[in-house]
This record gives sequence, structure tokens and C-alpha cells, in this order.
Amino acid sequence: MKILYDGKTKQVLTDEATGDMYLLFKDDVTGEDGIFDPGSNTVGGSVEGKGKIGLKISQYFLKVMEENGIPTHYLGADLDKGLMKVRKLTIPPLEFVLRYFTAGSMSRRFSIEEGLPFDPPYLEVTLKDDEQGDPLISERLALMKGILVEGQYDEGLDILEKVGEVLKKELAEMGLTLIDFKIEVGYDENGKIYVADEITPDIWRVRDKDGNIPNQVECSKLILEKIN
Amino acid sequence: MKILYDGKTKQVLTDEATGDMYLLFKDDVTGEDGIFDPGSNTVGGSVEGKGKIGLKISQYFLKVMEENGIPTHYLGADLDKGLMKVRKLTIPPLEFVLRYFTAGSMSRRFSIEEGLPFDPPYLEVTLKDDEQGDPLISERLALMKGILVEGQYDEGLDILEKVGEVLKKELAEMGLTLIDFKIEVGYDENGKIYVADEITPDIWRVRDKDGNIPNQVECSKLILEKIN
Repeated sequence: MKILYDGKTKQVLTDEATGDMYLLFKDDVTGEDGIFDPGSNTVGGSVEGKGKIGLKISQYFLKVMEENGIPTHYLGADLDKGLMKVRKLTIPPLEFVLRYFTAGSMSRRFSIEEGLPFDPPYLEVTLKDDEQGDPLISERLALMKGILVEGQYDEGLDILEKVGEVLKKELAEMGLTLIDFKIEVGYDENGKIYVADEITPDIWRVRDKDGNIPNQVECSKLILEKIN
Repeated sequence: MKILYDGKTKQVLTDEATGDMYLLFKDDVTGEDGIFDPGSNTVGGSVEGKGKIGLKISQYFLKVMEENGIPTHYLGADLDKGLMKVRKLTIPPLEFVLRYFTAGSMSRRFSIEEGLPFDPPYLEVTLKDDEQGDPLISERLALMKGILVEGQYDEGLDILEKVGEVLKKELAEMGLTLIDFKIEVGYDENGKIYVADEITPDIWRVRDKDGNIPNQVECSKLILEKIN
């Protein structure tokens, strides 16, 4: 297996014999100064077993998406090895963000109180660029940069909304209120869109029944209890 | 005269006896490390006479806008005192930005080559907030923050485009190609929109006939020669 990309919380691998693609879920957690934060761009620590838990949770939610008619890159998982087999896709360096409530960086950036509801949800697309702090990017600039072709921006927002509806409902059944989340999307050789990457507490912010916002590790525990 | 607001390059004053409002143009220039940059949020130095020159240039361009049917806050100027008499307006903490070519912060933020043309021009609205680096703000967030009411965001973009057309033509006649610029707008008690603030080399970036980008001080000299 050859490492194609070594990310903050995952590695992208390829089996050179077959050409198959895999994601390896690491034990690293994003955050700063020991405080875990799914919105952070740095690794704030490591939690043993976190990788395999992330894989299990991703497997669960990606399957739920497929059952709801939303195509994903998921092809299978080896839970012992922490590996997820995924579709070979072209993945633009973008994050599609959906917000049901104000929170986090948005509230800081615009001095808006946390917890104000958005109805319909608030959609944003950011360019993955740690140095520039993941700036918001418009359709026009994404086309100009050659990251997307005509139509793909809106198509990404469409699939984002669909994922949001399913995820919100699924988490509500676990007693969690979805605040915001981000997904990556990818395209196969025919230009068909799929949800890529992972679906774990690393991509969302939720509120529990007591009104608290559990961090990724706490949230993973809650989810695991429900899906086991 | 009482100082209501002490900005980086201007003061807002009021004559307490009459209630009239004035702008005092300072000699300070924005930039960093001695390099003047109209896009900068810090004062990079001071140039004697710069304030009065800025007033003279603003007077010229604001009058040109009025002649072209674009309402502005300009009511008169005392060139000796460096004071511009202005309409009393409510001015939201926003900058309306128009780009004819990629340049500056946009090119840095998105790793896009400088000098690529936008047709139609590229319009952006930013929240004036030095600490947050003047983030781009959507209509929905501006409404949510209570900075604007329904319709004012688009109205601001409309007047921005009109100013752009006049400014581009006017500068072209002076041998300068307009790259980008920003304006502030204000509303009177009836909700009528006006171009506020100044129109000087502090609000735009231009290219001269040799393809160079003159700084604010160099550009002011060029403009003064043309309007004197």
C-alpha cells in the first residue's frame, strides 16, 4: 500500500497491485491547546482507538446516506485495520458547509450571537487552504481557478442540503441537535457527484439534550452507544 | 467643532451650533513598513499636504458622480481648512468593493494570478472590522446583524456599479486603468442612498500606461495634474 496523501486525521492509500483506494483513519484529533475542536486546522492531540471509531461511525453514516439515495464514495471497510475502501474520485479542495444555527467561526467573524437559527439553512463553500484560513469562495472564483466546472457548485450545494436533512434527522434520533457540518464531494470519470471523505463528529458540531456542545471524542462515544 | 470619530485617514466632525457635519482629511497614509497600500488597515506614514489633496480630489470625483446622476453626501468644501461639508447619513460599517481585474488580497487569498479580467465586474461586500480582517459578508448576515434592511444590499451593489462605470471612464481619460475600488454608502432619514466617504486614490487601485501600479501618493500627483 502506498501513501498518496497524509492528512491531519486521515491518510489516503492506494493498493498498487489492484489500483484500489483506501482511507486510513488516524488516532489524531484536531484542536488547539488540548481543546478538541472539529473546526480547527491543527492536530490538538491523539486518542487511542479514535481512528477505528471514526471508521465505524463513517461506515454507519455513509451507509445511511446511500440508503437515502445519496451517492457516497464508500465501497467497504476493514474495521480491524482501520481502512475504508473508497471510490476513486477527483476531489476539489473545497468544503461544503451547512449551518442550522450560528456558531463558531461565523459568530466570531461577524460578532453574531451563537445559536441563532437559520431557516432555510445557511450554505457556504470554503477553499481548503490552511495558510489563508479556508476563505469562503464564490462559484465564479471556483470556476476561474479551474477547481469546478459550470454547474458543479450548485450540484455540491444540492447534495449538501440532502446530506443535512438525513444527518439532522439521524442525529435527532440519537438526542443530538445538529448545529453545523461540512462535507467534501468528489466526481467520478463521468462527472457523477459523490459524498467523499468521512461522516463523523469531526465534520459536525451538535448540541446534546442538556444544551452542551460535546467535543469530537465525547460525541463519538455517544454515537457508538447508539449504533452498536 | 466636536470630533465624532477619529479614523485612520479622516476625522468626522460636527459643528455643535448648527448640527452640520464635516470630514477632515488627514495627512496620514495607509500601508505597512513604509509601503503605501490603499488596501491596508494600518497607517504606514504621513505626507504633508496629503489631506488637502485628498479633499480636492474627492471634491472633484464626488461632483462628477453628482453630474452623472449618482447622489453623494458632498455639500461643499473649504480647501484651506481641509474640511468637506457632508450630508448627515446613517452609514453601515460596510465596504462595497468592485473588481475589474484580480489583484491584491483576492489574488493572495485564492492564489489567483493578478490582472485577470472580470466581465461583468466582480462585486463584494465586506464588514469593516480590522480585527477580523474585514470579512466578506452576505446579504443574509447583514440583515441578521441589523446593519441593513431588506433591499439595501442590492441597492448598494447597484450604486457601486454606477460609480464604477463613471470612475473607470474618468480615470481612463487620465491614462489610468481602474483595477478595483471600494465605496461606503449612507442613508438619509427617508432611506435614500448616497455615496459617502471619499473618492481618492485611497479607495482604488489603478494601472498606469506603463503597466505599473502607482501608490496613493504618486497617483494623487497624477490626478492633481489633470484636474487643476
